[in-house]
Amino acid sequence: MKCMADLCVIPFNGKISVAQEIAQCQQILQQFDIDIQLHGYGTNLYGEWDDVFAAIKACHEQLHETGIVRINSTIKVGTRTDKDQKIEDKVNAVNDILNA
Amino acid sequence: MKCMADLCVIPFNGKISVAQEIAQCQQILQQFDIDIQLHGYGTNLYGEWDDVFAAIKACHEQLHETGIVRINSTIKVGTRTDKDQKIEDKVNAVNDILNA
Amino acid sequence: MKCMADLCVIPFNGKISVAQEIAQCQQILQQFDIDIQLHGYGTNLYGEWDDVFAAIKACHEQLHETGIVRINSTIKVGTRTDKDQKIEDKVNAVNDILNA
Amino acid sequence: MKCMADLCVIPFNGKISVAQEIAQCQQILQQFDIDIQLHGYGTNLYGEWDDVFAAIKACHEQLHETGIVRINSTIKVGTRTDKDQKIEDKVNAVNDILNA
Repeated sequence: MKCMADLCVIPFNGKISVAQEIAQCQQILQQFDIDIQLHGYGTNLYGEWDDVFAAIKACHEQLHETGIVRINSTIKVGTRTDKDQKIEDKVNAVNDILNA
Repeated sequence: MKCMADLCVIPFNGKISVAQEIAQCQQILQQFDIDIQLHGYGTNLYGEWDDVFAAIKACHEQLHETGIVRINSTIKVGTRTDKDQKIEDKVNAVNDILNA
Repeated sequence: MKCMADLCVIPFNGKISVAQEIAQCQQILQQFDIDIQLHGYGTNLYGEWDDVFAAIKACHEQLHETGIVRINSTIKVGTRTDKDQKIEDKVNAVNDILNA
Repeated sequence: MKCMADLCVIPFNGKISVAQEIAQCQQILQQFDIDIQLHGYGTNLYGEWDDVFAAIKACHEQLHETGIVRINSTIKVGTRTDKDQKIEDKVNAVNDILNA
């Protein structure tokens, strides 16, 4: 089962900036067989369900290993049986209508 | 790794009401070794990370098997290494402050 | 336009526990003409759209006034034109099916 | 109070594709004094809190006017008092660390 997901990780690191941990998550996500696309409020993920959620779990586990005590993630995930739709397909479908 | 999660499933069932599918998800979630608590905009889940996400995956898979073509879920998930905090612990922590 | 919403506020307070700020938000939300129901991973809100979002804005503003530098909220909001559905109506609709 | 937000609208349109309504929302959002950036699972929004939430409300209102009976939105919103951070600033902050 393929899925499209969106991940927004908030580490409770005691600081105001979380960019360091988000960068670390990007490096973790890149180790999985999934497509990833960083945006201004999270990261789009695309791939097999098990790979996507293994990647998300790895973010939590590896941030905890660096000493982060608490982590909150907000995730959106979509699955569909009618077609295989990648990240850029979704953006293009909207832009095609806007440009018609 | 234990986690607390919140799940809100939206099946694209072609209808306005999704209560039938949400009820089906409750029955699916109950088959896993996790605590669940339905509320007005989702369901709180608590348990081992792998059990919680196996339960969420089962909701998508089994709704698809009944013919639902597209499903969107919004998930919040929290992990912490300092203590084991169950669903009612989080509510009680807030209510204790309010009642103090 | 009435709406049902779900609010989860994360204050960047430099600490691991955010229960103090969540309790403060409950007190802020109670000052608005909306129904509120705390659960394990957020708070259900019901009322006029403008009241609900004024309440959410007040949470951000008043937490900032106490010195919280950064705040993230995750919000779900639903509107429908076919009927007026309150928080308990949604839970009952699911439980009625489960008990049938 | 400036804010960064992320909006994902799901119209209950009785169909599998929602691209038509998402395109309509893009046109609605463009009428407000906010920065918007479409991505694969939503749209980043940046501007004054009141403008951002007026834009989101307009999406619900105008989709309802076209006959959509039920709409669900998932919103993330962040505010901070230490600095004014735009959409591209957040992405750049992460990429700068990755490229360092």
